[in-house]
Amino acid sequence: RRYSIAVIPGDGIGKEVMPEGTRALEAAASAHGFEVDLQWHDFASCDYYAKHGQMMPDDWKDRIGKVDAIFFGAVGWPDTVPDHISLWQSLLQFRREFDQYVNLRPVRLMPGVPCPLAGRKPGDIDFWVVRENTEGEYSSVGGHMFPGTEREIVIQETVMTRHGVDRVLRYAFDLATKRERKHVTSATKSNGIAITMPFWDKRVEAIGAEYPGVTHDKYHIDILTAQFVMNPQRFDVVVASNLFGDILSDLGPACTGTIGVAPSGNINPDGTHPSLFEPVHGSAPDIAGKGIANPVGQIWSAAMMLEHLGEAEAAASIMRAIEETLATETGRTGDLGGKADTVSCGKAVASLIG
Amino acid sequence: RRYSIAVIPGDGIGKEVMPEGTRALEAAASAHGFEVDLQWHDFASCDYYAKHGQMMPDDWKDRIGKVDAIFFGAVGWPDTVPDHISLWQSLLQFRREFDQYVNLRPVRLMPGVPCPLAGRKPGDIDFWVVRENTEGEYSSVGGHMFPGTEREIVIQETVMTRHGVDRVLRYAFDLATKRERKHVTSATKSNGIAITMPFWDKRVEAIGAEYPGVTHDKYHIDILTAQFVMNPQRFDVVVASNLFGDILSDLGPACTGTIGVAPSGNINPDGTHPSLFEPVHGSAPDIAGKGIANPVGQIWSAAMMLEHLGEAEAAASIMRAIEETLATETGRTGDLGGKADTVSCGKAVASLIG
Ligand SMILES: CC(C)[C@H](C(=O)O)[C@@H](O)C(=O)O
Ligand SMILES: CC(C)[C@H](C(=O)O)[C@@H](O)C(=O)O
Repeated sequence: RRYSIAVIPGDGIGKEVMPEGTRALEAAASAHGFEVDLQWHDFASCDYYAKHGQMMPDDWKDRIGKVDAIFFGAVGWPDTVPDHISLWQSLLQFRREFDQYVNLRPVRLMPGVPCPLAGRKPGDIDFWVVRENTEGEYSSVGGHMFPGTEREIVIQETVMTRHGVDRVLRYAFDLATKRERKHVTSATKSNGIAITMPFWDKRVEAIGAEYPGVTHDKYHIDILTAQFVMNPQRFDVVVASNLFGDILSDLGPACTGTIGVAPSGNINPDGTHPSLFEPVHGSAPDIAGKGIANPVGQIWSAAMMLEHLGEAEAAASIMRAIEETLATETGRTGDLGGKADTVSCGKAVASLIG
Repeated sequence: RRYSIAVIPGDGIGKEVMPEGTRALEAAASAHGFEVDLQWHDFASCDYYAKHGQMMPDDWKDRIGKVDAIFFGAVGWPDTVPDHISLWQSLLQFRREFDQYVNLRPVRLMPGVPCPLAGRKPGDIDFWVVRENTEGEYSSVGGHMFPGTEREIVIQETVMTRHGVDRVLRYAFDLATKRERKHVTSATKSNGIAITMPFWDKRVEAIGAEYPGVTHDKYHIDILTAQFVMNPQRFDVVVASNLFGDILSDLGPACTGTIGVAPSGNINPDGTHPSLFEPVHGSAPDIAGKGIANPVGQIWSAAMMLEHLGEAEAAASIMRAIEETLATETGRTGDLGGKADTVSCGKAVASLIG
């Protein structure tokens, strides 16, 4: 077995954690008898922008469109390129052009990670956030009138399609069928966002009816964020629109203390284009260049990628190595109260992959 | 001094907590030498809808448009009226038609309220959320195409105006000048919501420049919700769009354990229309009719209302009575681990107002 993987470190700490991600990947490959063909790219970064005036080469799709998966670090360097340009010309393009319509993120309380919630222990919190990843609130439709005057007005349209909503809901319900509790929670705001969200609710009812073995309920996003803090043990699979999923999949990891550790998959379930795996954290300009960034989010993303490629055992061995490393003070990085730096943490994980 | 107050209990537990709110109001009035003229209304409720086919009488504006303030309970009873109808025909109308363009909510760790965050104590967390309350994501502009078919599509427009954004930002910066830390945090999402939110950011820069004595920073909403959990002590005044403010002002109280206790003001700072004060919680169909709802959110809202009317001492005496009551097991309701029901908690507070 041989997998071609586009490796895109991006900006800031992306460049520091990526080598640890690939170190884990190579260790897992050699331990589990497959090969990874790592193709490194410098585009989708603000450095690239500085040289070329755009975030990616014109032929970016040809360059990475045929790989088995994309392994991504982090993008953004607001001092040189505004975020809405750097992101829309890179990550958000990948998601949309490669139709990675599911953004999948685990929320899991891990041993060794200090939890900001009182009285919770590993095992108490374990759920998935399934986020719609191509449409909804992240649209490029809208405009700006009377700029620079008192009458200035901006409009941005949220666009939801039955096609787009149904498929991500089905993914969430499918995922729930494979879990013990078989429960889906839908994030809505149909009391206030009174055109798109009632439609979302209706589709949840319709798709939910196709899955008699799965229960489901819904919460408005405001009280749902409150429930993440008050009753995180309640959730199994949470499905949400692009914006609500973005919020919930940062808040969930924060509630488990794992914001620096959490991974994500940007998944094209149909396999028509490559899927992309990246840590939840961003490029973190405040700590970039110091060699102290936590590489676990990148390494855990490697595990998700291998799981996606069908290498479940290799993925599991990375997860075990992560858990063992996090449990020791010498393995954990400083953000988790440990003594490791980026490289020593990454080496510790790699050495435990078997 | 005599204040005319429209009293609207609404639905569900709104009808149970409102009498405790008015009990506190009357106690404060008699202790502090002013009168309250309470005008009770049964509209803006789903019961009213059941009888009249609409949430409010046609002349609702004449009936309550001239009062000094509106004291509101909670609205919504989804079993009989869909939320997006009940809310848009009542509360959201008030906010918009009475130009209550600021939604103001405290986030404060109170003695006696169990905090879901580890290691925090009263005094650690104390900030305000200032939410834009009339435009933004809560628009009624948009539509639905190809309903009931595979091609179905819904569109909803977020509308931001310079007029609307600037005035709420000024309110937030003004509020910060009166506080010790003099700091404003803006909630944005300009990396993903790339038309309206970059505009919001620009207005924050422009208005911020008018307040050299106030510092400010910004966070994207996803990481901001995470910061509420991880570093709530960091905030002083948080300003946000309608949707982001909605989320943050439920999440904030949840982080301090006060979701059943938190109040809010829907404020028309210009005084051209009455302002409205209501608890953060909703009508809570699951516990309605049992007499166990926590009335403190309603009572604290009375304190905010009196503060707004210029009765600062009376407001402070209600706040002291609330804090004393919450500190005792017999004063607190069951949701906070206490032994009181709605009425006994309300009576306990009223008896301490002096
Ligand atoms: C009931 C609902 C429409 C309302 C809102 O979203 O504004 C509520 O959540 C609030 O915060 O007052
Ligand atoms: C960087 C940003 C555009 C992105 C998003 O909002 O999707 C990030 O927050 C994420 O969740 O991957």
